[in-house]
Parts: sequence; structure tokens; C-alpha cells
Amino acid sequence: MANSHHTPTEDILKQHLADVVALLEKQKLEETVVRQQEKPRNSPLIESLLLQRHRAALKAKLDQLHAADIAYILEALPLEKRLAVWNMVKSEADGQVLLDVSDAVRETLISDMDTDELLSATEQLETDEIAYLAHDLPEEVMHELLESLNDQSRARLESLLSHEENSVAALMDFNMVTIRDDITLGVVLRYLRRRGNLPEHTDKLFVVDHQNILQGALSLKRLLVNQPDLLVSEIMSRDVISFHLADDASDAARAFERYDLLTAPVVDEQGRLQGRVKVDAILDHIRQQSSDEMLNQAGLLEEEDLFSSVWKSLRNRSFWLGINLITAFVSTRVIGLFEGTIEHIVALASLMPIVAGIGGNTGTQTSTLIIRSLALDLITPSNIRKLILKELGVAAFNGLLWGSLVGAVAFGIYQDKELGMVMAAAMFCNLMVAALMGLSIPLIRNHLNLDPAIGTSVLLTAITDSMGFFIFLALATWFLM
Amino acid sequence: MANSHHTPTEDILKQHLADVVALLEKQKLEETVVRQQEKPRNSPLIESLLLQRHRAALKAKLDQLHAADIAYILEALPLEKRLAVWNMVKSEADGQVLLDVSDAVRETLISDMDTDELLSATEQLETDEIAYLAHDLPEEVMHELLESLNDQSRARLESLLSHEENSVAALMDFNMVTIRDDITLGVVLRYLRRRGNLPEHTDKLFVVDHQNILQGALSLKRLLVNQPDLLVSEIMSRDVISFHLADDASDAARAFERYDLLTAPVVDEQGRLQGRVKVDAILDHIRQQSSDEMLNQAGLLEEEDLFSSVWKSLRNRSFWLGINLITAFVSTRVIGLFEGTIEHIVALASLMPIVAGIGGNTGTQTSTLIIRSLALDLITPSNIRKLILKELGVAAFNGLLWGSLVGAVAFGIYQDKELGMVMAAAMFCNLMVAALMGLSIPLIRNHLNLDPAIGTSVLLTAITDSMGFFIFLALATWFLM
Repeated sequence: MANSHHTPTEDILKQHLADVVALLEKQKLEETVVRQQEKPRNSPLIESLLLQRHRAALKAKLDQLHAADIAYILEALPLEKRLAVWNMVKSEADGQVLLDVSDAVRETLISDMDTDELLSATEQLETDEIAYLAHDLPEEVMHELLESLNDQSRARLESLLSHEENSVAALMDFNMVTIRDDITLGVVLRYLRRRGNLPEHTDKLFVVDHQNILQGALSLKRLLVNQPDLLVSEIMSRDVISFHLADDASDAARAFERYDLLTAPVVDEQGRLQGRVKVDAILDHIRQQSSDEMLNQAGLLEEEDLFSSVWKSLRNRSFWLGINLITAFVSTRVIGLFEGTIEHIVALASLMPIVAGIGGNTGTQTSTLIIRSLALDLITPSNIRKLILKELGVAAFNGLLWGSLVGAVAFGIYQDKELGMVMAAAMFCNLMVAALMGLSIPLIRNHLNLDPAIGTSVLLTAITDSMGFFIFLALATWFLM
Repeated sequence: MANSHHTPTEDILKQHLADVVALLEKQKLEETVVRQQEKPRNSPLIESLLLQRHRAALKAKLDQLHAADIAYILEALPLEKRLAVWNMVKSEADGQVLLDVSDAVRETLISDMDTDELLSATEQLETDEIAYLAHDLPEEVMHELLESLNDQSRARLESLLSHEENSVAALMDFNMVTIRDDITLGVVLRYLRRRGNLPEHTDKLFVVDHQNILQGALSLKRLLVNQPDLLVSEIMSRDVISFHLADDASDAARAFERYDLLTAPVVDEQGRLQGRVKVDAILDHIRQQSSDEMLNQAGLLEEEDLFSSVWKSLRNRSFWLGINLITAFVSTRVIGLFEGTIEHIVALASLMPIVAGIGGNTGTQTSTLIIRSLALDLITPSNIRKLILKELGVAAFNGLLWGSLVGAVAFGIYQDKELGMVMAAAMFCNLMVAALMGLSIPLIRNHLNLDPAIGTSVLLTAITDSMGFFIFLALATWFLM
């Protein structure tokens, strides 16, 4: 194919990465050779030329890459190489790359930059982009940045920073074209040509009145297919989906999905146009949310740079490990209550982890479905009773099914009918406990306006473990001793 | 505010749902009254008028709702009410609603429709939308649909159905405007006006040659801001990010995120334009993927309708429960090997779940980070050694830290120094096993071209449980007996 379209498959990205690593290695080799030769074969001039050649090749490679591709390469490199590459990225790209890397990697890059470098990197950014980086920038940089902005930009930045992290304001940018409704499409077309440029991802122009109150929107589509002598007011759509600054970002994301939006206006309480949300900000938000959820469920506090120091990784992981350890000790004490029984019937020690483990599994299944339904806002006062009855029904069936199976296997191993029956009864009871907990923990957390996803699985398995051990050992003490 | 813009917050959606439920209840009440009155107070005519009034109110309510909002309401209603509402949705909306509901709910809706209803619902849909529904439609409906399509549409549908579910072809649609590069922007503008309409989400026109080979793209933005006498070839962008039909859908999604795309052309092996991918298809894909991942991790095979029958839910959940039960029995047999030891030192029974449990937790932390990095393609031959060393380092530190803590607590409870030391050593060893497994299971699965996420956590906890019990009880047998 003679044309220059490219398919940005991961293979090409990986190739870029491999090229950069190869160039880095060459440079390092060269440096090592230079250092090892006590009596240099080549004159120092030629050596430094050789080194320069590799540097230049690497720089040329980096210059041709998209900021997002540089970000990918930085993510995949260990710290030392990462900083070597970072220092060679041309400074115009710095700001964009900082936006594109993950939080953990951004921290390593920023800590390698001095105030001047940070200022020159961030000065090229838009107000909303500066707001996005604000929490990671040193205070003096933010201070100088605020000084350097004009009044409008400073007011915007301060307004953005005053809103919550999960609000629509955090996803907003200010790049939009506004028009009045009493002009013709021809005038709009001439205005756009004179403007000579349109903000990225412009799919519609926002129509406002003289008080900047949002009246509607004119899509580029309608602008293009209608006659130039028509008035904006005749063509514009008045039924525009808009958001308020304080609206929840995840609600906005669902609205984008539901109504297939590309951009949407953001208004204040008085209906005055404040900015817009673009679908790519929504995409990033969705990815971030689902990634956070996954990390939290695995017991990690935050995203980890692939090459974080061991010490930083420990900090990130130890919070939930500590919590798990505490709940494990609670189970231990429950078992401790029945050590006398276990001493007599040692088979109980072998069988008890099954009761606890399967309880945890079924409880997690229930809670995952509830958390998902809560996230989609599908649970309402009118359907909750039905839902609870259904889940308890599933648990009861599961309890009968798996309980009798497990009881039969226990009987098979130990040839003890009563032990088998205790095992079956304990399984049934613990699965009912698990379903109740899987239902109530997320529902109660949600009712208290806490995130139903965070910590649910830890709390759930803590309860199903302790209760599993307790129910099984208590039944055994009662019926078998 | 006098204007009609609306913020589609979840509250408004919930209000719609509550309205529909209230209308359903009224209707039901009315019906009950009619049935209960042996001697009707009102004439049958008035009764049926009353009923009709409620039906009409409900229908009016539904008619004004967006298909996506109707889909939301159907998701949140139990089966009986869901079908009552579904029968009242106007048939023009049927196809769109079927596209918007979840797989599980779609099944319930389709099974309630006869062939004619399904045909009239799907006949209004685009080829790519029919392809999306194809797997859920009864064979005779698909057969009749194929018959009713023209040659081009049938060929397109067959081509779409021939590609894999996770390929770019599955996300593609055919709604695009193509132009040649030897005409002026003025001609393009006149052509668009004559066309009178543009496909949804059109941000660029695709430029092709006479063989339909993609040459570039002309963004609406450039079309609008440039002089009408310029040629398309002077203005168009030749460096367009495009995809091949068989490209991986998740790779495409990451490219959309990375390069902030709204639409992208899809070409065949010869570079001929086949269709386009829109960002809203990408959004749905990302949401679907992360939801599947979450469900699989919780041990669910697929999405569950909130009100699936108990029997269907059991089927969905029993596969992973069964697997877990088998692995739990393996642990049981490991413990069984050491029943003699436990009989002598019954404290072991209390302490052993801690060793196993914390191993599972740390292993999951490691495997989650590896799975994430694999998904982002961040792991390469050049950095894998460093990564393994780091993870083992974290595990060793964790082992020393938590091992000595747990050992000290065990000593505190049982006043047995040797028991404490065995506990500490077992913790250390099992954390190292957990890190090795957390690293190697996803890496090996990935190497074998299997999804590294599926089943990793089950396999991992199976190993950390069994090994945890084994290491602890074996050390205890050796040193304490």
C-alpha cells in the first residue's frame, strides 16, 4: 500500500518501545566502552560523536511519536531508562505526555523536573488540563502558573479546582464555539471561516442568549445540510442534554452511553453556559473507574507503577492485608472456642475450610450482582422485595444442592453418617448467611451513601469465614460429642 | 428556567420508572376491581373506559421516552411487569430498545415476541445492528430477514457475521459519506446540502479513489473553516488512523482512547474502505469488557437479569462454585494427611486458615497488577526480569513483616515459642509461593494465548490454600512433634 494510513495496533507500539530500548542500550554500551578504555583507541572527539549519533537517533525517534505513544513507552520502562527517555522528549510535548501517563508514573516524571521545566511544560496546557494536573504539581509551580494566567483563565481554574473530583466540572473543558440564535446559517459559516479553526471534537455549536444562558445547540451536521439563508433559531435543537457543574461524573458517563453523545454543554444553576464535556474525557473516566474498582477489589489502594520501589509497593498493599489479617485472627478465635471438639473429632479440622470457603464464594456472587445493579441504578423500592426473595431462593437451592453433595463426600471419606449430616446442615446455613450478607452489606453501604463496592468483599468473607467455622463446629459439638 | 434542556440525571430516570410502575399498579387495581365486582356498579362500558384511560396514560408516557430510557425501565422491572410494558412500547421503538437492553433481558423480550413482531422490529434496523442481534434471534427470523435484504446489505451482513466477536468488524457500521479528492470544498458542501442528511456522529468524510481504496479523510472542521474553492486533496488529512476488519476490538478501543478518536475508517487487506467504527460502539465495548471481567472474577458465567428465574441463576453460578468445591476438597485432603499432628497440637487447626488466607490475598494483589499490565501491553521481554525481581522482593519483605507479626501473635495466644516460629516461617514461605503463582499463572496463560484474567484467581487461591496448609502442617510435624 502506497498510502500512509496506519493501523495503530499494539504490535506497532511494541515495536516503537523495542526501538527505543535498543537505542538506549546502544548508547549505554558506547558509554561503557568509553569508560572502560583507559587508552582510548578513538580520539575523544570521535567517541563523543558516536554517542551523539545515538542520542540524535533516539531523539529523532521520539520526536516523531504521538504524545500518547511516548506515554506508553515511559510506562513500560524501568525508572532509570524512563528518566533517560523523558529528558530527551522535546519540551513542547512534555505537558501532553504528563496528561497521558498514569498517576504513579506521572509522579516519577514530575519529581525529576525542576520548577522551570514544569512551568514551561504546563504553560502550553489548557485551563482544564492544568486543573487535571493540579494535585500532582508542587505548590510553587501552581502558584507561578496562577500568576501567569489572565483573569478569565485564573477564575476558570479556581472554579474547576473548587469542585469535587467526581463531579462533571472535573471532566469539563472550555473549548467551544457559541453563537446567537438570530443570525443566519450563512453568517455562521462565514464566522467559522474567519475563525479559521474549530476546537477539537466540535460536533455542535452552543446557542446562548445575551446573558450567556444556554438556548440550544446547532449541530455541524444541520449547519452543513441546510440552506444558508435559514436562521439559527429555525434549525437549532432546543432539547439539548446538558449537565450541571456539580452533577456526578459517573451519571454523566452513563448519559453519554445511553444517548450516544459526543459533547454536551455544562451549565451553572442559572442555566448559564460554563463549558462542555467531550466523550474522550468520559472514556478516560470510565476506564479510570473500572480500573480503580479492580484494584480495590484485589486489595490495592491505588494504581502501582510497574517499577515502583519495593517500599512504595508495600505501602500500597499493606492496608488491606492488615485488615485481612485482623479478620483472619477473628476466625482463628472462633475456631479456638472449639478446640476441645476438634481434639476429639480431628476430621472437623479438614472439613471446616470447605464450609467457610464456599460461603465466601456464593456471597461474593450475590454481592457482585447487587453492586452492579446499584451502579446501574436498577434497584428501586418497588423491586427490592422481589430481588431479596429471589436471592434467598437461589441460596436455599444452592444450599440443598451443594450441602447434600458435600455431606455425601464427607460421609464417603470418613464413613460417618452423622458427620456427613452436620456438614450438609452447616453448608446450607452458611450459604444462607452468605446470601443475606451479600445482599445487605452493599445495600446498607449504598443507603448510607458509601461506595457499595469498596471493602464489601473483605467484610463479606470475614463474616462468612467466621460464621462458617462457628456454624460447623457448633453443630458438630452439639450433635457429635 | 423556561427552556427545555434537561439534565438526564439518574433521578429523572428513576422518576420515569416510578411513574411507569404507578400506572401499572393503577391498571392492575382497576382490573382487580372489575373482576371482584360480581354486580358491577358501573356499566361494563365505563369500566373498560377507565381501564383504557390508564393504558393510554401509560402508553403516552412510554411514547415520549428515549429508547435507552425504555430499556432502563425494562431492566428494572420484574418479568411480569416488564412484559406488560414491553407490549405497550410502540413497535417503531422495538428494534432500538432490543439493542439497548442487556443480553439477559433481551432474551426475555425476544422469547415474548412472535416471528412477525420480531421481523417488524428488526426490519427498521441497520445491517450492523441486525448483526449485533443475530445470535439472539430465532433462526427463522434471521432467515426471513436475510431474504428481505437487498444484495449489498445481505453481503455486508454475511461479512459481519463471518468475523470474530472480538474483532473490529463486530463494532463496525456502514453509515458514512465518501468523497473523491479531485473536487472542491464548494462541491462537497453542495453535495451535503443536496444529500439533506448526514449519518450520526459524522466528524469526517472519507476520501477514496475509484477503486474504493482509502486515501484520507476530510474533517467537517476543515471543511467548514477553509475556502470553498480549495480542492479536497489540498485540505484532507492523509495520515488517518484506520483499522483492519480482523483487528482486535480491544486494541481498537485503546487506540480510540490514546488518540481521542470519534470515528475511524475500517479497511480490508487491500486497503478498500469497508465501514467505520464510532466512539459509542467503543464505549459499549469497554463497558462490556470490564463488566464481563468483574462477573468472571466473582465466579459468574455471564450477566444475570436481576429477575432471572432461580433455576437460571443456579446454572449461571454453579460452574465456578463446582470448581471451587473441587479445589476445596483438595485442600481438605492436604489437611487430612496431617490429622495425626493436629490431634496432638490442636492449636494448628485454629492457625492454619491464616497462613492459607493471607497467601491468597497477596497472590491476588500480584496477579491483578500483572493482568492489568498485560492488558495495557506494558510487559515486554526487556522489562520482565526486573518486574519479577521486584515482585519477589515485595513478597520477601511482606513475608518477613507479616510473618513475624503473625508469629508473635500466635506466641502471645498459645505461649509456645516454637509454634510461633513455625507460624512465621510458614507465612514467609507461603507468601513467596503466592508471589510466584501470582506472577506465573497470568504470564503463562498469556504466553499460551489464553485470557490471563479468566480463572486465574480460582487457580491461585487453590494453590495458595493447599500449599499454605501443607507448608504449615509439614513444618509443624517436623519441628513440633
